[in-house]
Amino acid sequence: MKLPKGFLASGIRAGIRKKRPDLGLIVAPNGANAAAVFTQNLFQAAPVVLSKASLKKTGGRVRAVVVNAGCANAVTGREGLEAAKRVRTRAAEVVACREEEVFLASTGVIGVVLPDGKIREALPASVTRLSIGGVEALSHAILTTDVGPKVTQASFVIGGKRARIVGVAKGAGMIHPNMATMLAFVMTDAAISTTDLQRALKNAVDESFNTISVDGDTSTNDTVLVMASGAAGNASDADLGSFAVALAKVCRDLAWMIVRDGEGATRVMEVEVIGAKTDRDAKLAAHAIATSPLVKTALHGGDPNWGRILAAVGRSGARFSIKRVSLSAGNITLVTNGAPASYREKDAARVFARERVPLRLSLGSGNGRAVVLSSDMGHDYISINTDYRS
Amino acid sequence: MKLPKGFLASGIRAGIRKKRPDLGLIVAPNGANAAAVFTQNLFQAAPVVLSKASLKKTGGRVRAVVVNAGCANAVTGREGLEAAKRVRTRAAEVVACREEEVFLASTGVIGVVLPDGKIREALPASVTRLSIGGVEALSHAILTTDVGPKVTQASFVIGGKRARIVGVAKGAGMIHPNMATMLAFVMTDAAISTTDLQRALKNAVDESFNTISVDGDTSTNDTVLVMASGAAGNASDADLGSFAVALAKVCRDLAWMIVRDGEGATRVMEVEVIGAKTDRDAKLAAHAIATSPLVKTALHGGDPNWGRILAAVGRSGARFSIKRVSLSAGNITLVTNGAPASYREKDAARVFARERVPLRLSLGSGNGRAVVLSSDMGHDYISINTDYRS
Repeated sequence: MKLPKGFLASGIRAGIRKKRPDLGLIVAPNGANAAAVFTQNLFQAAPVVLSKASLKKTGGRVRAVVVNAGCANAVTGREGLEAAKRVRTRAAEVVACREEEVFLASTGVIGVVLPDGKIREALPASVTRLSIGGVEALSHAILTTDVGPKVTQASFVIGGKRARIVGVAKGAGMIHPNMATMLAFVMTDAAISTTDLQRALKNAVDESFNTISVDGDTSTNDTVLVMASGAAGNASDADLGSFAVALAKVCRDLAWMIVRDGEGATRVMEVEVIGAKTDRDAKLAAHAIATSPLVKTALHGGDPNWGRILAAVGRSGARFSIKRVSLSAGNITLVTNGAPASYREKDAARVFARERVPLRLSLGSGNGRAVVLSSDMGHDYISINTDYRS
Repeated sequence: MKLPKGFLASGIRAGIRKKRPDLGLIVAPNGANAAAVFTQNLFQAAPVVLSKASLKKTGGRVRAVVVNAGCANAVTGREGLEAAKRVRTRAAEVVACREEEVFLASTGVIGVVLPDGKIREALPASVTRLSIGGVEALSHAILTTDVGPKVTQASFVIGGKRARIVGVAKGAGMIHPNMATMLAFVMTDAAISTTDLQRALKNAVDESFNTISVDGDTSTNDTVLVMASGAAGNASDADLGSFAVALAKVCRDLAWMIVRDGEGATRVMEVEVIGAKTDRDAKLAAHAIATSPLVKTALHGGDPNWGRILAAVGRSGARFSIKRVSLSAGNITLVTNGAPASYREKDAARVFARERVPLRLSLGSGNGRAVVLSSDMGHDYISINTDYRS
């Protein structure tokens, strides 16, 4: 896959991780407008602190993105901040741009200061390898426990010009970005102002990455960055509808890939809660289901054990009357008016054995609605996470 | 172990579970004052609904307690309520007491109506087997996925008389009572009024069972019942201090046994949060640590991966300044003022390899404090919970 015009990328091994590529570089030779959303975790990693400040300083202009895997550089105090700054300085040198035009992102172990020497040493090679086809190497270099790379694209017409958008992401350890770092970099050659980018990104994230998480429930390093090079040549006052749609599609694709590639995941449940008193009640209920280890292990076993689902809802804090609660999986109604419905066990089991398990909970108390995607939890999850300092 | 004077118990097989005892009975032939705390889950099981109403009706008098394993009789609507009532009627007949003096508790699968016929048929045999040594049979008959029975005792002097207190419990699937049912029955031969029982129970539960859970975070069936037969013969206006201490000790013992016997558990972390802005902030932080699958799997692997601990705290909603955060495990300081402390990895690993891992997080923002006990999460947890309808 080729990058949109105005972007080059590479992915190489800097030696932070053992025997795996761990340093990604994106360069927009003529610069790009940029907008980003960051983790809401109070422990914000050094690269998050710096990148946030840089975007503010430049009013949303980025010329280089340096991403490393293997070390999150989070909870590393002043030392970590200095290490990240040294990487930024070196990147600005080799790319020939201002320091504040360098955007940083890191993922990996928390509490270890970034081995910035290795990165600074490797950066010239990163630059040498830059190419318009470098998205594949980039997509591999940013992975941690992901099984495979996550890349998607779309094309659209804006102001009469054909434009492209390409997104690359790394997954969370589990499906919730609170569990491990989620990074996503989206590039388009359309000309979009920073303000419009920010607005479109907010909307796209709300219906994609935020459905696999919950507000504020993020890791120390989560970052979603969107950049527009303007190389497609559309007028800056063009109608943005097609861009917004394409951006949302790319974000949804990446969000799905992240959940599906959750550690040890074999299937994904789509938890939709409707009829809640408020959207907040719907979110509480959906989140309780999506994060319950008992629900996630039953899902792994393909077991339509809806008792665990309702038990999670009952403790979620969502307000409702149990007599109005209904639950269905696919087209099988499991619970009606707070009591077991009549259905054939094997029909329910068939739904729970699919790769995509749609659950719909109706609380019968209002118009609040929420959707959360979540993966199952099996032995591989335990294996991946009990290994010493995985 | 013998029961306190004024109580008899038995545990037999009624055929609800395959090849395991599943029906427990406690009888106080002359009745007992009683107080209880119940689940705060909105889906309250039929036995919870009935027992709550009975205690209210009698002003806190109990003559018989019927406990079954294998079926929670929760989310079973009117049918489940009727089934529980039939058990109550039959129990009142065989024990020769009023219906409202029968206390019911159930644990097992949610969404299945209680097979009350089996219980009603078995109740005469339950009565025949009643004995003062029956606590052991009782403790086995109430288990579900627990590895072993949980019984403890204490003795104390009240109003010049020697009294005893015995507690028996079944554990939650995981350490949090939101995950599976926690039942505890505590009996004393001291003479204590219902009001005093209720007050002492509330205090004892707050510093025992509630430290392994969080307010409101309970299953559909959780119940803690305390009964006082008065057979010890102390004056009713005796100083209650010794009783309160003994009750708290028994509850703490049972709470510890429940966590230690969490599904697949090999060790227990004691998460103490101090210096929080408020107790609520401390609870948010402690709960986030104690429930994080990433922390629990690292604990299983004996990995002092404190990055995962702080990442959980950062997203917990607790308010604090990261520069004031410190974390220690046993006597090893891992983090000081929001940055890694200097310690030897193998010393930290040694603490995390113990059966009891004490973690102390200091937020440096006030006087709020909370303690939560939690077990690790390993392959056995997954095996137990992915099996179809375990």
